Amino acid sequence: MKPTYQPNAQLDLSFTRIVDVPKALIWRAWTEPALLKPWFCPLPWKTIDCEIDLRPGGIFRTTMQSPEGKEFPGTGCYLELIPNEKLVWTNALSPGYRPSLVTETCGSEDTGFLFTAMIELADHAGGTRYSATVLHADVAGCKTHAAMGFESGWGTALDQLVAMVKKGI
Amino acid sequence: MKPTYQPNAQLDLSFTRIVDVPKALIWRAWTEPALLKPWFCPLPWKTIDCEIDLRPGGIFRTTMQSPEGKEFPGTGCYLELIPNEKLVWTNALSPGYRPSLVTETCGSEDTGFLFTAMIELADHAGGTRYSATVLHADVAGCKTHAAMGFESGWGTALDQLVAMVKKGI
Repeated sequence: MKPTYQPNAQLDLSFTRIVDVPKALIWRAWTEPALLKPWFCPLPWKTIDCEIDLRPGGIFRTTMQSPEGKEFPGTGCYLELIPNEKLVWTNALSPGYRPSLVTETCGSEDTGFLFTAMIELADHAGGTRYSATVLHADVAGCKTHAAMGFESGWGTALDQLVAMVKKGI
Repeated sequence: MKPTYQPNAQLDLSFTRIVDVPKALIWRAWTEPALLKPWFCPLPWKTIDCEIDLRPGGIFRTTMQSPEGKEFPGTGCYLELIPNEKLVWTNALSPGYRPSLVTETCGSEDTGFLFTAMIELADHAGGTRYSATVLHADVAGCKTHAAMGFESGWGTALDQLVAMVKKGI
């Protein structure tokens, strides 16, 4: 089994779980807009729009909506794609690898931060070993993200993904 | 012949030249530290150090030195590598795809900017069609780079590269 990325304790947020669904279906849930929207935000938040151009340099765009109806668009750029194994994207670049405008990407300094996200999938006796890691530029960005509830948020989203896959896609 | 990248007139700086050396040698001059240092800075500036880990996510680091002896280190991250054809890197990410600290990467706001650089090589009757493009986040960064003499600087460096290759490497 390939070693997964080794996180930097000061700058990265990361978790690993074993989930009892095949990695090929997790890959599809991450890379097909119609399969991503149902699970990507912890309810009662919703993902109301999603655009995916699945190639290095391609766009990964989502619009999340709060329960009050406020929209939060986010645009990133895919960096590395190994089907059924590894998905890497960043909001530090916009599609086509152009550096993103930090003020546009991050909004206010209180809530925004640049990140690179990495999903790693590996076969496991129990189904799939699922690792999610988010790399930040500095400790402040990492702390902001942790305070927003990274692990609970991404963990709940993963629960929703697994539940969707089990219903059949 | 593959189409080259089509620059954005407001945000990119770009030039294309036909040079009478084979693209495989230009590729080597861009990707082997010992072959990059002699030509990478227009003289009398020098490139006194260079580190290359030639894979997506790998480091591209140089230290340039002014005629007065002041050192200017720069660290980037490779994004896309097609041997003898296309080389893309950015300073918006540090090695391993981590978002770079803008203040560290760019120094003062007067002289620094984030960029993604793209070298494209194609066979041509006269040797090689060489295109260099630099993508900026905003018009201000693009203007700063233009005012620093992008085309003259990168053009002179290319002259130095061609002269080195013709002497034999």
